Order: sequence, then structure tokens, then C-alpha cells
Amino acid sequence: MTEHTSKQFEFELESIRTRVLQMGGMVELQIAKAIEALATGDLDALEEVVDQDHRINLLELELDDACVQIVAKRQPAANDLRLVMSVVKVITDLERIGDEAKKIAKMSKRLHSSDSAFVPRIELRHAASLAVDMLRKALDAFARLDMSAAAEVVRQDREVDAEFKGIIRQLITFVMEDPRTISRGIDILFMAKAIERIGDHAKNVAEYVIYMVKGQDVRHTGLANIERAANTD
Amino acid sequence: MTEHTSKQFEFELESIRTRVLQMGGMVELQIAKAIEALATGDLDALEEVVDQDHRINLLELELDDACVQIVAKRQPAANDLRLVMSVVKVITDLERIGDEAKKIAKMSKRLHSSDSAFVPRIELRHAASLAVDMLRKALDAFARLDMSAAAEVVRQDREVDAEFKGIIRQLITFVMEDPRTISRGIDILFMAKAIERIGDHAKNVAEYVIYMVKGQDVRHTGLANIERAANTD
Repeated sequence: MTEHTSKQFEFELESIRTRVLQMGGMVELQIAKAIEALATGDLDALEEVVDQDHRINLLELELDDACVQIVAKRQPAANDLRLVMSVVKVITDLERIGDEAKKIAKMSKRLHSSDSAFVPRIELRHAASLAVDMLRKALDAFARLDMSAAAEVVRQDREVDAEFKGIIRQLITFVMEDPRTISRGIDILFMAKAIERIGDHAKNVAEYVIYMVKGQDVRHTGLANIERAANTD
Repeated sequence: MTEHTSKQFEFELESIRTRVLQMGGMVELQIAKAIEALATGDLDALEEVVDQDHRINLLELELDDACVQIVAKRQPAANDLRLVMSVVKVITDLERIGDEAKKIAKMSKRLHSSDSAFVPRIELRHAASLAVDMLRKALDAFARLDMSAAAEVVRQDREVDAEFKGIIRQLITFVMEDPRTISRGIDILFMAKAIERIGDHAKNVAEYVIYMVKGQDVRHTGLANIERAANTD
């Protein structure tokens, strides 16, 4: 590679990394906005979340294309190739987090538009802030190639799962006491499920970061192994 | 490329395609087995589904690795590169379908192990057979690069979604009549949700097939556009 080509290549790789982080930032904003508007009942904000989702989809397509182009033109090897292959996976998860935010916004709109008084009072904000925190940390880990942050995200996924189970228990109690809450309760259940899935996707992103840095695939290997991978050089 | 290298390359590509189909077949079997055992209450079969999931995870890791290797060693271009990049995406969806089958098996075990008599009688088999049919057709489309089969899968996803909504309605009726069914009802709800997600993942696979063949990304573009892409040469 000539010096010029190599500079150009570095520039292209950096541009891909930057856009992944940009996409991640947008996705993070979408969740935060959906959850905030669920609490306040701000229908305009919810509508905005639904409207903005296509921008995230578009970013995914552009980034996928940029990855294919860079592989075709630059034939990256070793670390660089691992970065590109990880990005292809990471953006799929980010796009699906975007989908979950959109689902939350849609269900929240329905909840606030209905005149049903039978809405079980269940708090989703704690679970949601845990999931957003996981996503933020996973993106940080991607930006700084920080293995221990990535391992921390994998660990946190258990907390989100525990929160989710707590929400289900609360819901069962509500519905037993007043079966008229079932219909709205199911909406809340699926919002909680969406939050739990956001945690799963953030965990996937963190695992791709570990692969990117260590060249070691830690998916499906359990937390202990992931922490071992993160702590060895 | 020498003739020898080119033969070797073709062989490697073919081997990747074959293993994707193998992985797809295993995943298909997992869903069918989980759904069958949900109906019959065969706890051994359910346990087998849970046990076998790690084999699918392993296949994903192996295939991911094979894709990285082939890109690094053979520097594929155009169609071949598109095939490899599509495989990287397709196997993520197949692995996640495997996860959903495992979830169905786990929830089904819990349902059949509990001594609760309050199980709402809701039939999931029709929705499940639709989802399995989508997956099978998506894999066929991948094997034969059949665009119209791929478009058909995207169309079918609506049917699965409609089935899912019908299941929710039935469930609401059950719980209103007998609130004691709520706890088991939530398990059934999440099994239905898992089936709906299998449909989504099969649809993703079909969209990657269209990209593979046409070099045109049809994700997020709507059914009409996908059918147009499938019908033009």
C-alpha cells in the first residue's frame, strides 16, 4: 500500500467507527425519549420517536455498505478486518435496539390515547435506565476498546433480567386484584420485554467489542469466561 | 488466481453455503420439536431442545470464523463478497431463532411441570407452523437464490403477526373470565411472542437473500418495493 492509500484507508476506518458511535448515540436518545414520554404522556415526543426510527435504519444500510466497500477495495487484514466484521454485527444490534425504542413509543402512545382507567401502575424507569446505561457503556467500550467496560455490560445484563422478572410479578398481582387491567397490562408487559431486549442487544455489542480487541469469540461462553478474557493480556 | 486456488476458493464458498443450510435445518428441527413437545408434554424432548442449543451456537461461531478467514485469504469481490457478508448476517438470525426455540422449550417445561390447573387453552400450533414454513422457505430461497420465494416469506410475516394478535385477544378473554390463569397465561404469551420473533428472523434471512442476489438492500423498504425487486431482472 502506498502511503497515500494507507492514509486514505485509515481515514475510512475512522469514519466507520465514528458513524457507529453516532448511530449508537441516536439510538440511546430514542430510548431515553420514549421512556421519558411514557412517564409524562407527551404524545408529540412519542410521535417523534416513531418518526425518527427510519434515520437509524438508513444509517445501518449506509454503514453496511461502507463495510462491504472497504473490504472490497482495501482488503483489510487482521485487526482491521476484525473491526469491520464486528461493525457489521454491532450495527444490526443497534438497529434492533432502535426498533425496540419505536415499539415502546408506539405502545406508549396507545396507552396514553386510550380512555381506559384500568392501567396498572408499574414503574419501568429503573429497568430502562439500567438498559440505557448498558448501551452507553457498550458504546464507550467500542470507542475506547475498553475490555473491562465490555465485561461490565455483560454482568449488568443480569440486573436487567432481574428487574424484568420483578415487573412480571407486580403485573400478576395487579391483574389478580383487578382483571380489567389485563389489556393495558399486556402493553406494559411488552414494553418491559422491549427493555429487556435492549439489554440483550447491548450485551451483544459488548461481546463483539471483546472479539474485536482480543480476536476471541466470547459469545455463549458464560460470564466467568468473559471476565477472564477481559482481564488477560 | 491460479486454477488450483480458484477451485479451492469455490470449494470453500460452497462449504460455507452448505453449513448455513445445515445450521438452518437444525434450527428448524429445534422449533418443530419444541412445539410438538409443548402439545404432548414430552419433558424429555423439551430437555433435548434446551441441550441441543449449544450446537447451534457453535455452528454460528465456526461459520463466522470461516467467513473472516475466507475474506482474509481469498479477498472475494462482487457476488462472492456479497454472499459472505450476507452469511455473516444470516447466521446471526438463525442463531437467534435457535434461542427462541430454546425459550419455548424452557417455558413449556415449566408449564408442564407445574401443578397449576389454571392453564388457558390456547393453540399455538398454527402460528408456529406458519413461522416454521417461513424459515423453511427462506432457507430454500438461500439455497436456490430464489427471489420470489424470498418475497413470499416477507409477505407471510404479516400472517404470523395477525396470528399473534389473535392469540393476545384470546388470552385477554381467558384472563378476564378467570384471573387465576394470568400466571400461566404470561408464559403462553411469551411463547407466542417467541413464535412471532421467529417469523421476524425468517423475514430478515429472506431480505438478505434478496441483497445477495440483487445487490440491493431491501430492508426497511416495505413489501411493495421488495416484490418489485424480486420481480425485476
